[in-house]
Amino acid sequence: MTLPSRHEYAPWLALTRVKGLGAVGCKKLLTQFADPVKIFSATPAELKSIDGMQSDALEGLVSFSDWAGVEEEMRRIDAAGVSLIRFNDKNYPARLRTIADPPPFLYVKGELRAADDRAVAIVGSRSASDYGRRVARDLARGLASRGFTVVSGMARGIDGMAHEATLNAQGRTIAVLGSGVDRAYPPEHEQLYQRISENGAVISELPIGTRPLAFNFPARNRLISGLSLGVVVVEATEKSGSLITASLALEQGREVFAVPGEVGSSRSRGAHQLIRQGAKLVETVNDIVEEIAPQLSKRDGAGETTERRELPAQAADDVRKIFALLQEHALHIDEVIEASGLSPSKVSEILLNLELQGFLQQFPGNRYAVER
Amino acid sequence: MTLPSRHEYAPWLALTRVKGLGAVGCKKLLTQFADPVKIFSATPAELKSIDGMQSDALEGLVSFSDWAGVEEEMRRIDAAGVSLIRFNDKNYPARLRTIADPPPFLYVKGELRAADDRAVAIVGSRSASDYGRRVARDLARGLASRGFTVVSGMARGIDGMAHEATLNAQGRTIAVLGSGVDRAYPPEHEQLYQRISENGAVISELPIGTRPLAFNFPARNRLISGLSLGVVVVEATEKSGSLITASLALEQGREVFAVPGEVGSSRSRGAHQLIRQGAKLVETVNDIVEEIAPQLSKRDGAGETTERRELPAQAADDVRKIFALLQEHALHIDEVIEASGLSPSKVSEILLNLELQGFLQQFPGNRYAVER
Repeated sequence: MTLPSRHEYAPWLALTRVKGLGAVGCKKLLTQFADPVKIFSATPAELKSIDGMQSDALEGLVSFSDWAGVEEEMRRIDAAGVSLIRFNDKNYPARLRTIADPPPFLYVKGELRAADDRAVAIVGSRSASDYGRRVARDLARGLASRGFTVVSGMARGIDGMAHEATLNAQGRTIAVLGSGVDRAYPPEHEQLYQRISENGAVISELPIGTRPLAFNFPARNRLISGLSLGVVVVEATEKSGSLITASLALEQGREVFAVPGEVGSSRSRGAHQLIRQGAKLVETVNDIVEEIAPQLSKRDGAGETTERRELPAQAADDVRKIFALLQEHALHIDEVIEASGLSPSKVSEILLNLELQGFLQQFPGNRYAVER
Repeated sequence: MTLPSRHEYAPWLALTRVKGLGAVGCKKLLTQFADPVKIFSATPAELKSIDGMQSDALEGLVSFSDWAGVEEEMRRIDAAGVSLIRFNDKNYPARLRTIADPPPFLYVKGELRAADDRAVAIVGSRSASDYGRRVARDLARGLASRGFTVVSGMARGIDGMAHEATLNAQGRTIAVLGSGVDRAYPPEHEQLYQRISENGAVISELPIGTRPLAFNFPARNRLISGLSLGVVVVEATEKSGSLITASLALEQGREVFAVPGEVGSSRSRGAHQLIRQGAKLVETVNDIVEEIAPQLSKRDGAGETTERRELPAQAADDVRKIFALLQEHALHIDEVIEASGLSPSKVSEILLNLELQGFLQQFPGNRYAVER
């Protein structure tokens, strides 16, 4: 089943419209089948065999028929000048892919880059104090100048300041919206929205035109933390959305940072609560960088394998053949078998060995590519 | 050897004038011999047998001769209207007795009470901000109203505010000086000094007339923390004496609390550093009380034994005799043997059993008293 490039999106859009199927289920399916086309053409027995699949999701998949809705959404995407980045695309944010419930695809206004992997989120109160805004500005500026991408939610107050200060420092910034990616919300951030999409990306998992409903914000917050090495909470009242982001960050294994303030200020109470619960107290950007440095050096360690991309001289011809196939694009194991003409068991063995030696990286859905 | 009450102090004063003998050595000797008179009349072999005794301390003890200096100090004590509380006195602060290097005695202007055992220290910067002074005031007031004694160092800034707010709230407060107890330092705290000595105590381990030398302050700080269940640092720069107090508090197993402030304020940097190192972040007095509550309820648990001060009906006559002897005063085991007319082994056995059953408390130097 080969469709024109544009229509490749159709089964992806369909996936998110299946009743009873959420992001966790989508990840399970995509990890198994790699491609939504295969998901929709799978037999109920095949679907049922997937560990943890809910019966209502199976029901929804088997009975899915809203192709008209999918067509409509594709028209909207075209009209909005928005691109889609799918779970198995190479430029789908690698860190976001690791969470339990990554979106099957992201609507993107602007551009996501590999360097955005070095991201830190700054979030906080919409009704920030001058103090909070000043700290958000200084931290964003400091992160930008150290080459970090600053992620936030484009809300009033701390979020807006974090984006703005990053842009002013020529840094990259990603806004994750709780509305359709085509909507600049709040309205006074229209200009900020433009600047972000030109110097970073505005992203959302919600259909084009979705209004900014409070209901969607907690789910949005998991993307802010999921994209980031750590989340910095600058000012937050005790029941603020920033605390939700912080707790999602913890679940996702991200670092949580909080900026203290004067006791007696209700705006600092949430941050103080986080610090009591173990969040790292942040005074300057160095406090953030020191804490996430170990994760970065792990990345740098992986980077060293770039030097080793040449196979050892004694490597067998079959190994060289497969290695060459995976130089440019990630391939599914079936595609490797077909293109190499080798037996499935031989291919499995070679892929496993190359992966163990650090030459290959495995992606969800049994896909492989040369480690870079 | 029985001396008139006043002269009982002489061997104690002598002890602190022995060259090479510090507070740690004094505690070892007092724990072994109970009474300085016995220390000075001990043979070198007996002294040498004490675990960890330094040879220069032994030398200093054996060759001690500065009785003229002792006489002079006694005259000064009389002139200053100061009392001495000795390590083995019942009103020597029980918590202070547990540290590694408690003073053999304290100079006291005012009065120490058993209730001062429920003490919390508040310390901080001499050049406090309005914010810091406000927080110190609120915390001191809150502690006072909950029946805690507030301990501090009577310095300018946070210390002074902590004492003052406690006094204004009709609470008890203890000032630990880094000078002689007769000296009101800084001079502008002359009136505060008077109020503290009338509604609590001004104490010091330093001889009458000792000037407030910076050199003495770190040693003084160990008494502030040693007297307290916990130490609250309100504002502190990075190299402040308050951080010394906090680290001594940790060594002594006391709780350490710190009050956050705005990042960028150098006065909050020390407190933030403490929080990063694990100090409890304090916003209100409840944060302090919650943390030390377990220690208080342990005390309350001990308090329950007051109800059990009646021996069980089946207790033997020998047991009753010893129990009666220890109702009013703590006695050394030798005194119990003499007064009871029982054999040393019988007395040991009874004392041990009564202690294990929670009727008696053992004090350093083989002294016993009824648990209250």
